[in-house]
Amino acid sequence: MLSAGGPALADLLERTELRLAAVAEGHGEKLGRHAGGTLAAGGKRLRPVLVFLCAAEPAEHLVAAGAAVELLHMATLVHDDVLDAAELRRGRPTVFAEGGRSAATATGDLLFSRAFAELAATGSEAAVEALSTASSALARGELMQRADAWSEDVTPDRYLERCRLKTASLFEASCRLGALFGGRPELAEPLGHFGERLGVAFQMLDDVLDVSGPAERTGKPRGADLLDGTVTLPLILARRHDPSLSGPVRCAEEAAAVSDRIAATGALEEARAQALAHVSEAKRALDGLELPDQRTHALHLVADGVVERYA
Amino acid sequence: MLSAGGPALADLLERTELRLAAVAEGHGEKLGRHAGGTLAAGGKRLRPVLVFLCAAEPAEHLVAAGAAVELLHMATLVHDDVLDAAELRRGRPTVFAEGGRSAATATGDLLFSRAFAELAATGSEAAVEALSTASSALARGELMQRADAWSEDVTPDRYLERCRLKTASLFEASCRLGALFGGRPELAEPLGHFGERLGVAFQMLDDVLDVSGPAERTGKPRGADLLDGTVTLPLILARRHDPSLSGPVRCAEEAAAVSDRIAATGALEEARAQALAHVSEAKRALDGLELPDQRTHALHLVADGVVERYA
Repeated sequence: MLSAGGPALADLLERTELRLAAVAEGHGEKLGRHAGGTLAAGGKRLRPVLVFLCAAEPAEHLVAAGAAVELLHMATLVHDDVLDAAELRRGRPTVFAEGGRSAATATGDLLFSRAFAELAATGSEAAVEALSTASSALARGELMQRADAWSEDVTPDRYLERCRLKTASLFEASCRLGALFGGRPELAEPLGHFGERLGVAFQMLDDVLDVSGPAERTGKPRGADLLDGTVTLPLILARRHDPSLSGPVRCAEEAAAVSDRIAATGALEEARAQALAHVSEAKRALDGLELPDQRTHALHLVADGVVERYA
Repeated sequence: MLSAGGPALADLLERTELRLAAVAEGHGEKLGRHAGGTLAAGGKRLRPVLVFLCAAEPAEHLVAAGAAVELLHMATLVHDDVLDAAELRRGRPTVFAEGGRSAATATGDLLFSRAFAELAATGSEAAVEALSTASSALARGELMQRADAWSEDVTPDRYLERCRLKTASLFEASCRLGALFGGRPELAEPLGHFGERLGVAFQMLDDVLDVSGPAERTGKPRGADLLDGTVTLPLILARRHDPSLSGPVRCAEEAAAVSDRIAATGALEEARAQALAHVSEAKRALDGLELPDQRTHALHLVADGVVERYA
């Protein structure tokens, strides 16, 4: 995926890592350690990659934008881990596990404020507005997820709206920022649409993986969403075929058994097909934008990578 | 206090209220209700007042700056209430009490991001840097307070550093922003120093009041800091006179009794005297700045108001 974008992408990503490492410093030993650990834990840096691939040229502020979207993403993960009292993420102890509730809340707050500081330093009001809109959507999506916990009335449309808020909004902002800073502000809208559809697909496939496993791949036991009451599309669809799929799931064994029953209804294939349709719509959003072929190809590869991760 | 600043101050404060109300809208019903409730709960708007009084002239971006410092302040309060599982603040149910942990965390995140968005919209990198520095300090101060909970080794210097981080940093940023946007950027340093000293005094006096009461004035039972293990200057000083003042305080009755014992050592007068010295230093920072007399007078009134609140 990286090579498709050429050396510029690798260079931008490397500079983003340096920027993220620098951000973690200068905030006191304790806070810096937690923030640094969170940022170093890595992940795919998918959001910065979207920023860079949506830019027409390597421009001054792209690294700031890449760092900003990753910082915001990390901030929400740290706060989610506090709310879930999660011990592990990506195979490492969470800030919550290492430092406790207050350290993790403060670390998330720090990452939030640094995300906006990074972007504000570019002097672009439109960019900060894009990040702020995403930040508001992330918070609303998180609330919606918790409000809908254990509910049997979540419709597919409501589920899609939640995916849009809690995941796709930051994908969209990443693409918009790339367009804004990368010399193609007139493409902010269609590239934002690409990111938004891709983000919805990403979340849907993540939710399929939670049911399908294998656990070695996801780093968490199968049916984790079932255990914490998060109602996802596979469950919503499966209930149509098997109305007895209701009531709370209380332990890991039950979660695995319910996961098997969801899979038996064919709901995973249905959900995966819906996700793939969103990926196709994302790709179609690139048609007619007159991007260089290599760039369109790279964005297609990112979209396919989202799918392959779950194949 | 308000009248001393003339009609401009009242006007700026009114516009800040409107801005804060607007910020609470447009983020979904639930999040907007929590954010709006938090912002409407009011308080003294002391930080926006500092912004406005440190400005030499009513300038375009002052309201944005005033809203930003208040939003950041509110964000930290909302997250503090989550960490403390606090049910009441200023006589109203907290977001935590009304919406639960996740709603309150999301509301705080929203207020954080809107604080930076407000300021970023001004296009001033120096302003965003000032707010970001304060935000980082607030997080570090919060961590330090929790790390030092129940400790018998907190020195007066460490206590002062905590006051500087968790309270004075945002007072300082408010004054700096007023200078930056109000046409006197060359005064950002000395006015920032004024705010910083005033903020330290504010926190010290707040901590005296926690021990002295009366509860009707503070809205919380006497010795609340003792109950949650926050080691403040009155306790540190009192222990020098009465080394038996050690060990955890477990219930409201014990907190009231220990408060009486702290008061009996004379530690409250000592702490109050130290706070007043910081207020004097704050006022001295204004000497020679060639502010209009009326403006210096207004800033002195704010400083005296901080003291009087606790007289």
